[in-house]
Amino acid sequence: MSTTIDVPESSNVAKGKAVIVTPQRPGGWKKGIAIMDFILRLGAIAAALGAAATMGTSDQTLPFFTQFFQFEASYDSFTTFQFFVITMALVGGYLVLSLPFSIVTIIRPHAVGPRLFLIILDTVFLTLATASGASAAAIVYLAHNGNQDSNWLAICNQFGDFCAQTSSAVVSSFVAVVIFVFLIVMSALALRKN
Amino acid sequence: MSTTIDVPESSNVAKGKAVIVTPQRPGGWKKGIAIMDFILRLGAIAAALGAAATMGTSDQTLPFFTQFFQFEASYDSFTTFQFFVITMALVGGYLVLSLPFSIVTIIRPHAVGPRLFLIILDTVFLTLATASGASAAAIVYLAHNGNQDSNWLAICNQFGDFCAQTSSAVVSSFVAVVIFVFLIVMSALALRKN
Repeated sequence: MSTTIDVPESSNVAKGKAVIVTPQRPGGWKKGIAIMDFILRLGAIAAALGAAATMGTSDQTLPFFTQFFQFEASYDSFTTFQFFVITMALVGGYLVLSLPFSIVTIIRPHAVGPRLFLIILDTVFLTLATASGASAAAIVYLAHNGNQDSNWLAICNQFGDFCAQTSSAVVSSFVAVVIFVFLIVMSALALRKN
Repeated sequence: MSTTIDVPESSNVAKGKAVIVTPQRPGGWKKGIAIMDFILRLGAIAAALGAAATMGTSDQTLPFFTQFFQFEASYDSFTTFQFFVITMALVGGYLVLSLPFSIVTIIRPHAVGPRLFLIILDTVFLTLATASGASAAAIVYLAHNGNQDSNWLAICNQFGDFCAQTSSAVVSSFVAVVIFVFLIVMSALALRKN
């Protein structure tokens, strides 16, 4: 990546020409960033949809029951986990729909419109993915450790499989979040003037 | 905001000159965005530090006690709330340190370096702020509503003040998150070519 050069606001024709010459190279490092963007998006789709599917299928019924009760834990026991499944499915859907725009930036590396569109929506969906991942992580932490002061007991001793499945869903969502951060940083690098 | 124009990669001298002429206007809409950025940053500092302070001072001791127990809830009863205080203080500190860079973009609206620096760090701290806000929100929700399947009882009947204070801290952190999203979108708009 080249260092940033501040062009002072004076009408210097020689400098002006130098600026003009640069876009002649078709593509260059901007094309590389666009291809990287596309590949990272595929990874993020896998992570987001994997997280939604893992969380959505988490369900464990304990082998013992009383006359009135059967002990069962599934993702829809917790509002936070429901929110997680919905949000992660949304994020995955957005990422699939964003692929065509990513392809446009590969074909036309100097087009500003699609990149701007992607960076704005990426920021919004980064926030969504982070919020659902972090809130699910808070619940998973409570399920593992419990909380003494509020007398909430850890449930992972009983619901071991449920806890393992929800934990891996949270990890998968954090992978998607990290990829989103990279996508935004790369788009910002590619947006600046040549 | 002007519409985006794709300059085709051909050596058109007339077009080249048109590109050069634009930066002559000193400032323009980019300066407006930079000033807006500075003002929004001040708001985000207030929201982030307010959230940290509100959460950090939350502490309630119930007026009755047994021989062995005194019922007390404070932010350090919950690991998530400790994380919240630390993260929000960090975000507030970053925002204060980012003010000089914001001022540089006001003075030199066409400088790319400071804007790029700000958009990258803003994205990272947006993720931090969202994660702590959302995880604290998950705990606050549990404190209000409890959870039947895991037998976690709502504690807000007893610890009413504690719940009110933590809830307002969460709301304040979400204000900071929304401001961060706007900051990133505005920086992206200002980063593109003139």
